[in-house]
Amino acid sequence: MLGSTHGTFTTDPRRAHVVACGELPPPAVHGRAATADDLDVSGRPLHSDVPDLDRFFRPESVAVIGASDAEGRPNTGITRQLIAWSERVGARLHPVHPTRQSVFGIPCFPSVADLPEQVDLAVLLVGDPGPVIEQLAEEKVRFAVAFASGFAETGEAGAAAQARLAAAVGRSGLRLLGPNTNLNAFERFRDDLEGPAIALITQSGHQGRPVFTMQELGVRLSHWAPTGNEADLETADFISYFAERPEVGAIACYVEGLKDGRSFLLAADRAARRGVPVVAVKVGRTETGARMAASHTGKLTGADAVVDAAMRQFGVIRVDGLDELQDTSALLARARRPSADGVVVYSISGGTGAHFSDLASERGLRLPTLSAAKQAELHQWIPEYLNVANPVDNGGHPVGDWRGRKIIDAILDDPEVGVLICPITGPFPPMSDKLAQDLVDAAEQTDKLVCVVWGSPVGTEDAYRHTLLGSSRVATFRTFANCITAVGAYLDHHRFTAGYRSPFDEAPRSPSPSFRKAQALMRPGQQLSEHAAKQLLRAYGIRVPREQLVTSAAAAVRAAGLVGYPVVMKASGPQLAHKTELGLVKVGLTSASQIRDAYRELTDIARYEGIALDGVLVCQMVEPGVEMVVGVTHDSLFGPTVTVGLGGVLVEVLRDAAVRVPPFGEDQAKTMLSELRGRALLDGVRGAPPADVDALVEVVLRVQRMALELGDDLAELDINPLMVLPRGQGAVALDALAVCR
Amino acid sequence: MLGSTHGTFTTDPRRAHVVACGELPPPAVHGRAATADDLDVSGRPLHSDVPDLDRFFRPESVAVIGASDAEGRPNTGITRQLIAWSERVGARLHPVHPTRQSVFGIPCFPSVADLPEQVDLAVLLVGDPGPVIEQLAEEKVRFAVAFASGFAETGEAGAAAQARLAAAVGRSGLRLLGPNTNLNAFERFRDDLEGPAIALITQSGHQGRPVFTMQELGVRLSHWAPTGNEADLETADFISYFAERPEVGAIACYVEGLKDGRSFLLAADRAARRGVPVVAVKVGRTETGARMAASHTGKLTGADAVVDAAMRQFGVIRVDGLDELQDTSALLARARRPSADGVVVYSISGGTGAHFSDLASERGLRLPTLSAAKQAELHQWIPEYLNVANPVDNGGHPVGDWRGRKIIDAILDDPEVGVLICPITGPFPPMSDKLAQDLVDAAEQTDKLVCVVWGSPVGTEDAYRHTLLGSSRVATFRTFANCITAVGAYLDHHRFTAGYRSPFDEAPRSPSPSFRKAQALMRPGQQLSEHAAKQLLRAYGIRVPREQLVTSAAAAVRAAGLVGYPVVMKASGPQLAHKTELGLVKVGLTSASQIRDAYRELTDIARYEGIALDGVLVCQMVEPGVEMVVGVTHDSLFGPTVTVGLGGVLVEVLRDAAVRVPPFGEDQAKTMLSELRGRALLDGVRGAPPADVDALVEVVLRVQRMALELGDDLAELDINPLMVLPRGQGAVALDALAVCR
Repeated sequence: MLGSTHGTFTTDPRRAHVVACGELPPPAVHGRAATADDLDVSGRPLHSDVPDLDRFFRPESVAVIGASDAEGRPNTGITRQLIAWSERVGARLHPVHPTRQSVFGIPCFPSVADLPEQVDLAVLLVGDPGPVIEQLAEEKVRFAVAFASGFAETGEAGAAAQARLAAAVGRSGLRLLGPNTNLNAFERFRDDLEGPAIALITQSGHQGRPVFTMQELGVRLSHWAPTGNEADLETADFISYFAERPEVGAIACYVEGLKDGRSFLLAADRAARRGVPVVAVKVGRTETGARMAASHTGKLTGADAVVDAAMRQFGVIRVDGLDELQDTSALLARARRPSADGVVVYSISGGTGAHFSDLASERGLRLPTLSAAKQAELHQWIPEYLNVANPVDNGGHPVGDWRGRKIIDAILDDPEVGVLICPITGPFPPMSDKLAQDLVDAAEQTDKLVCVVWGSPVGTEDAYRHTLLGSSRVATFRTFANCITAVGAYLDHHRFTAGYRSPFDEAPRSPSPSFRKAQALMRPGQQLSEHAAKQLLRAYGIRVPREQLVTSAAAAVRAAGLVGYPVVMKASGPQLAHKTELGLVKVGLTSASQIRDAYRELTDIARYEGIALDGVLVCQMVEPGVEMVVGVTHDSLFGPTVTVGLGGVLVEVLRDAAVRVPPFGEDQAKTMLSELRGRALLDGVRGAPPADVDALVEVVLRVQRMALELGDDLAELDINPLMVLPRGQGAVALDALAVCR
Repeated sequence: MLGSTHGTFTTDPRRAHVVACGELPPPAVHGRAATADDLDVSGRPLHSDVPDLDRFFRPESVAVIGASDAEGRPNTGITRQLIAWSERVGARLHPVHPTRQSVFGIPCFPSVADLPEQVDLAVLLVGDPGPVIEQLAEEKVRFAVAFASGFAETGEAGAAAQARLAAAVGRSGLRLLGPNTNLNAFERFRDDLEGPAIALITQSGHQGRPVFTMQELGVRLSHWAPTGNEADLETADFISYFAERPEVGAIACYVEGLKDGRSFLLAADRAARRGVPVVAVKVGRTETGARMAASHTGKLTGADAVVDAAMRQFGVIRVDGLDELQDTSALLARARRPSADGVVVYSISGGTGAHFSDLASERGLRLPTLSAAKQAELHQWIPEYLNVANPVDNGGHPVGDWRGRKIIDAILDDPEVGVLICPITGPFPPMSDKLAQDLVDAAEQTDKLVCVVWGSPVGTEDAYRHTLLGSSRVATFRTFANCITAVGAYLDHHRFTAGYRSPFDEAPRSPSPSFRKAQALMRPGQQLSEHAAKQLLRAYGIRVPREQLVTSAAAAVRAAGLVGYPVVMKASGPQLAHKTELGLVKVGLTSASQIRDAYRELTDIARYEGIALDGVLVCQMVEPGVEMVVGVTHDSLFGPTVTVGLGGVLVEVLRDAAVRVPPFGEDQAKTMLSELRGRALLDGVRGAPPADVDALVEVVLRVQRMALELGDDLAELDINPLMVLPRGQGAVALDALAVCR
């Protein structure tokens, strides 16, 4: 059986390091007002509450409000299931109904006030849970579950009703699951399975069923939280809680919309610090999907690229299919930390090995060539003409006898190897039954990960059903793709957590000296002129060209003398955009006469086009470099986000840009650049020198600081272009647009 | 049961159109020398042979050379299987062995010459099949199968032995399957399944097993061709043959390497004309995969992007996993032509509908919003508050009674709907069993495609095993992803074949008038100077700037007067590349003195750099447009290929280019442009006018003509940049590089 993943971690020196540099704050107490210390400079929390849900999942006493045993009533079936569940978990159950004496033979109480004891959990089977909440609060009930639907998922009126319910819950001090949820938390879990478990969180009961059903395939499940409309308790609360539970090896989520971006990030951060993997399906790849998911749960879905980035920042593994959710979370829950990232593909067919390796390499798995010594060792049992470099092709026959196990052990014994994958594409019982058994036996003797792909589409074969699924040490898949996705996620997860530093520990709590200067420049409700926007950048230490704003040709000539020839001249005004297209930019001016001509021409065009100017900018001409864009936009779910992209036509046509949700550190700023398809431009192409990437990273981080400090007051910031000069020479914001709220 | 796909096609007016404009040539007779009529201008064949393999798959008599019934000999098991197979197909089997009197009680003959009749098929169980081939030819045996390994898959010596074997086969007139093949062609096929079948072609027996095993899930299989090393018969031969068989609904291929690019394209063309889908796994996404696949079968794998393009040009559906190969070929074999491309997602959970629709929309499936009338109809049976616009969410309950079937029929009755997909994520027998049965029943009454995704990971449920898999009308999947891939491929396939025009019908057979002019410019083994390369382009009607090659400053000034100011001057020489980086290009010259200065500077640099010049080019300065590249390179498998991409930094950094294998028509040239990520540049961005796309397409087609006519003599051609001017103004090749072989 698998040892606890957590047990493995604490003895790992790398893990110790992680804990040291990312020390967990003490869990905040629910309901406590946040102090200034708990907030970053933007006023967003830096710590998440971890609700103590022990008594929710394992209550000592339960009240069922609206219990019934009348034939044909929906509540009757639910009551019956709750009684069975209470018996399993050893809770005392008290039915509540205004008129019944007993329900299924259990004494019934007319109201909450009449309950014989203070109960941990009240299950509300009533149509309108609102009025009951206050009664429950008076009786100091800790948790409630509301099944009723007709709230935010149905439209505006429902959303208003949900807001009223949430307010009542907020006043009450109890915690509510729902409304629009179901019985999933109270299902029958198999208690005969061992090892680390999956904890499941879903916003749709139906969509959680396949992961739950994996218990029939031998995968342990510890909890199921069907969060429904999340009027109070949300996905993030359960992630935080499960991340602290010792029996949980992985958290699997089905998410349609997130209630609050920040609380999700804080929960993911907690799981990342703990080394607990979070695997999530998040609906909303397309606009259609986002809209439909929103109408189903009534929650914000967020622009998908931002959601995607936020998940990656905090190590959440996003997958698209429920089958991937199952396979990836099962593997991550049960597999121990890898001792190496080398993957060996072992098969009884050269074709299978070549095919699998091709797809695995494409995903980025590392398939090291085995050493000459290891290959010689394998050739003791495998005919000389077969390739054993990796993939290892045994040609079939050695599988049938004592050599089969020798080969597997020899591969697992190689220190470069962390994962052995054996795709059994076509089951052929004389070979595949023995191979499956050897793999299961070998897996019991090693800490390394052993995976099998059972390629038969039938799936009723004994070797699959009993030998492979009967093992909690072998990870069994049905398709190459799901195996590769899961193994990739497994290696990525351990790489990520080993190097994880929580950005919340380093997030600024108080404004920088720049903030006061910047505040003076803000003009609420207005777009700043280019000149003012550049002053804002300067306030945050971002370089801009030497420039002067002038209102006469003579002043322009004087300004050119000060900034130095050659100069660029641009019309300047609060509402100006597309200056180049309108002919409102003149470059490479080298004489006073050219400057006077340019001044006249710019003001003529502006007059002709009816554009109000506050003057003309006379700017230093900056040498060529790599044009980038850096900006801030607001996401409805996560608040301000920072974007960096390649400038000019590349960002306009190819949208080659990367986004991050603050707070993030220098590592993420660098990762953003590596996500750009045109990244190579920064390294220098066609003989161009490498660009000053450090300066670019610094600008991204300073823009993040602006986003955090100016917060919602800065509706939009766009540095376009930021000219990144050759290495060592910095980066200069040639133009900027800033919109104040 | 399904009607024949082919039967459906012939009554379809669109199909009639396809046949009219793509009339099939009569099958060429094998062994007949190709006449000039059969070849395109590059000397490549325009028609494929279709070997008559009826007697291979259904022989009347079979000889087994090397038959055995001795205990423990591998040939004994094989002989036993061949006897069983002969009995099933009604063939007379004759064992051949030099010393045995009988094998398994069947009279044995000492040699091929002693056989009692002319046999259709000889199965060679001998280590060296070479010597037997000549004996077989003398006895007029039509087909042979060689199981022996140790040929091209083992290295150079084996490749030489295979070449000798292939030569012997070529002289003999018989057709050979193998060597390094196996018994797959002679397996036991289920004969109780009806409807169109899958024909399977694999280069690895193990890798074909999952598709074969689908018979256990009720999917009919008609043939299995395990092509092994393809010394003679190759994948293409079997595609051509299967495309002509009435019982074949789809061809599934597992390909490691193609023997010959052209014969594959001709076979795919035949299948496309016939409307028979070809679904293929082709190993070699990565260099590693390509190398390993080559070592497995000893065949060329081809640069993957070229293979990918070639497959798409001829409608071959490429998939990555064997599970996708199974699911996609099964769907394509059995489903009838779609009456509409609208897809409706129907489920018992809003979450499931939203999730599935999100992924389906991302893949490009069209999910039309159902009409108000249709929605009102559905709301007769589905509560008003549930969304039935598409996805249709029934909320669960209506499934349990008579309403369930009404809803399904109403959806299928909508003329906009061609496909109904019902994801049953979590099986809940009271609902899902009835839902599955209703779907199966409804599918029997309609020509439209009904798909179910059975989301349970268990897969032993009755509703899945019996109800769904028991139907040949419902396509059942286990994952959202495979369903979406298969349905996407199904709709794409029918779109493709409906509009298919074979490029082989329009391929040039004889050289154009340009060819003679071009020939005179070719310099075998040399790279042409820019000036000469441009003359080559001019010979093919591709515009180049007015320009003159001069060898003195005075001549340069005169030339500028002729081409017109302003001019560009460039150093010209046969080995010149990277002219811009070396400072060997001067633009925007407007006066005689500038020209004299430029001439001196260019020749000075060349002298300093030690570069031999044949002079200096004085060129017309062309207005700005969109810079593209168009070129020809040679692929080891497919011969010359044509590439078009975005110019400048885009092609260098992002490799934003599309490739095609000639012959291809204008439609494919246009599709190439739509594959470019930066396609929008051609439509005009930042106020730029739309570019002359027609002129660009024309250049691509003219370059194709060059590739075909100059063939292997033109090792490489690179027009970079091709300046595509605003619409109506054409495209001009500003620079060109041509290398002659």
